[in-house]
Amino acid sequence: MSIHDQDRVGAFMPASPVERDGAPAGPLAGLAFGLKDLFDVSGVPTGFGHPVWRSSHPVPQADSVVLTRLLAAGARLVGKTHCDELCYSLNGENPHYGTPVNSAAPDRLPGGSSSGSAAAVAAGLVPFAVGSDTGGSVRVPASYCGVIGMRTTHDAVPLEGAVPFAPSYDTVGWFARDAALFEKVGRVLLADSAPAGAPRRLLIATDALARALPETVSAMAPTLERIASRFGSVADVTLNPQGLEPWMQDFRLIQGSDIWATHQAWIRSLSPDFGGGIRERFKWVSTLTDEQVAPARQRRLEIRSRLNELLADGTVLVIPTTPGIAPLRGLPVPELEAWRNRCLGLLCIAGHAGLPQISLPMANLGGCPIGVSLIAASGCDTMLLDMGASLC
Amino acid sequence: MSIHDQDRVGAFMPASPVERDGAPAGPLAGLAFGLKDLFDVSGVPTGFGHPVWRSSHPVPQADSVVLTRLLAAGARLVGKTHCDELCYSLNGENPHYGTPVNSAAPDRLPGGSSSGSAAAVAAGLVPFAVGSDTGGSVRVPASYCGVIGMRTTHDAVPLEGAVPFAPSYDTVGWFARDAALFEKVGRVLLADSAPAGAPRRLLIATDALARALPETVSAMAPTLERIASRFGSVADVTLNPQGLEPWMQDFRLIQGSDIWATHQAWIRSLSPDFGGGIRERFKWVSTLTDEQVAPARQRRLEIRSRLNELLADGTVLVIPTTPGIAPLRGLPVPELEAWRNRCLGLLCIAGHAGLPQISLPMANLGGCPIGVSLIAASGCDTMLLDMGASLC
Repeated sequence: MSIHDQDRVGAFMPASPVERDGAPAGPLAGLAFGLKDLFDVSGVPTGFGHPVWRSSHPVPQADSVVLTRLLAAGARLVGKTHCDELCYSLNGENPHYGTPVNSAAPDRLPGGSSSGSAAAVAAGLVPFAVGSDTGGSVRVPASYCGVIGMRTTHDAVPLEGAVPFAPSYDTVGWFARDAALFEKVGRVLLADSAPAGAPRRLLIATDALARALPETVSAMAPTLERIASRFGSVADVTLNPQGLEPWMQDFRLIQGSDIWATHQAWIRSLSPDFGGGIRERFKWVSTLTDEQVAPARQRRLEIRSRLNELLADGTVLVIPTTPGIAPLRGLPVPELEAWRNRCLGLLCIAGHAGLPQISLPMANLGGCPIGVSLIAASGCDTMLLDMGASLC
Repeated sequence: MSIHDQDRVGAFMPASPVERDGAPAGPLAGLAFGLKDLFDVSGVPTGFGHPVWRSSHPVPQADSVVLTRLLAAGARLVGKTHCDELCYSLNGENPHYGTPVNSAAPDRLPGGSSSGSAAAVAAGLVPFAVGSDTGGSVRVPASYCGVIGMRTTHDAVPLEGAVPFAPSYDTVGWFARDAALFEKVGRVLLADSAPAGAPRRLLIATDALARALPETVSAMAPTLERIASRFGSVADVTLNPQGLEPWMQDFRLIQGSDIWATHQAWIRSLSPDFGGGIRERFKWVSTLTDEQVAPARQRRLEIRSRLNELLADGTVLVIPTTPGIAPLRGLPVPELEAWRNRCLGLLCIAGHAGLPQISLPMANLGGCPIGVSLIAASGCDTMLLDMGASLC
């Protein structure tokens, strides 16, 4: 029976049915997984969330590195998962393919752009699934769907065979419900078997908490205490005295400019149609000038230095993954836009500095999940995996 | 009179004659410059050092960001400069277009891959010229040709409109003889007018000195003393107790794998011919497996953390740019290969960690120049520009 027969949440791409057996043995032997439809599978078109993309690009002749690593570890690919159009959204809606159902909160959005991978894991269709995270595309759906999700250190997992989006932010991520399995998959994707470093100090980002809804902060309080109890040293920190809004604005500008540079040729030549929100964003990024973006790029370097200094020597930063639970399905575009910007203020922290961030389903509000996130220094991915396994 | 009429050193591409006036006013008003032939100029084919590349790619319809910034600052493009085939060499030889003459040592190689830009500046054809640096393609020709050259912090100057090579290492750089002008150009390319940070501490990398020829170390001794006299705090440091050879091996693997991922489709479909050295390298990278490269990627993250820690708080690292002066023209390929690897052990330091490095023509041996390099923390590009202006 193929995954499409069991897929009651609309997580998998029926247009790209694919199965690949993994190696007979290995740390992930026999485990089924879904792969976001921006990673290449040899002989299968890559869709990148848009039917025009799918039909206007050559069929890949090689597997992405991510797929190669998972198959070599014994995992079994059962299908490609939906994503937002060209991944340029955090909502998980797709006008061509529908909106995967968020099993943890069925009247709410699943989050995106790795919507199908998160929804498939949340619904128990597969034990794990792979996504990508540029602006929050793994962290957001992990938070909304109540599963563990992670974005890796920038450059830590090769993106060869994945469609580039905004390359200086693009990273690989994945989802699972079980923390031990989550760690195992991470070890395979990171190709890292060295012992993890020890976390030494916890910083609670007060400006990040201030960007979340007050009820989110209350809902997270017991979890923050639980996490803090693991550390000998705990302190509050203000990431930016001017608040996270300017970091978010810089993120939107740089990301937008990079996306346009990467994809303007294709968009200009084929003028594909996009759904609400994404359509307006592509229009906006086409107007960006170097004069607008250059100062943001400079400030990004300062943000990076600030975070690298803060996170030295085993320091871990804790923030809410998203300001609150998933938005309801069917909200008007402007409302979703405002929410997106509020989210990006939290998401851009790890994004700007290329840092690893794990979102743990350790809080909920009115029965809906919200993720609590840990961020560590560049390269300390396995330290976060260890912490996730001991907390969840 | 076009630059081609004055080009006695073979630095410019006669096949891509191009001139573009800059804005009527600006910090670089009226200054002529050459642009390495991997940066796009609207309406002019980009050659990337190979005639088959040039003829098999569409003519760019937009200017690269680098060009846009320079023209907006008033500088005047007078021509595109030669580079090695697909930039995959540090020698400056090109079997299709010849080897630009190194005016500072005419019987020796100019260095590459930004060979034409360095040669044009060394010969006084233009006051400055732009290159790109992935493995050393600005730093090496700057050292060999006796001019100032710099690679910028990774991501600090946008590479939009430049051919990608090994994207996690690719950076923009430039050459000039005059240090004040060098700084001005840097301010424009970096789009950074903020005051530079103050250098506080100098580290002398003893393992980097050990990788240079003994006569290079002797020739540099007075310069090192002069540089050290500017700092209140000076100390020796060993970057890696195992020496720089493993860092170099990791660099070759990761860079090779990235280059192959970026360009294998083109190479496979057209089977272009390459000159000695480059031909063997492309053959080698086509055999690399993820099993070989993955551990190197992990070690790279550790190298980055090590260097970020060392260079915090205004620390500057000093190393020889190259182990010695330029090799003679016409050496056999295996000899040049061994020299390349010796060079890469020094060059990979800034490369792995995405750090800015300025090469200053402050030493010479038997009448031939060798560069002395300063490396700073990520984002501290203008600090290095300031130091260059005060030292040269």
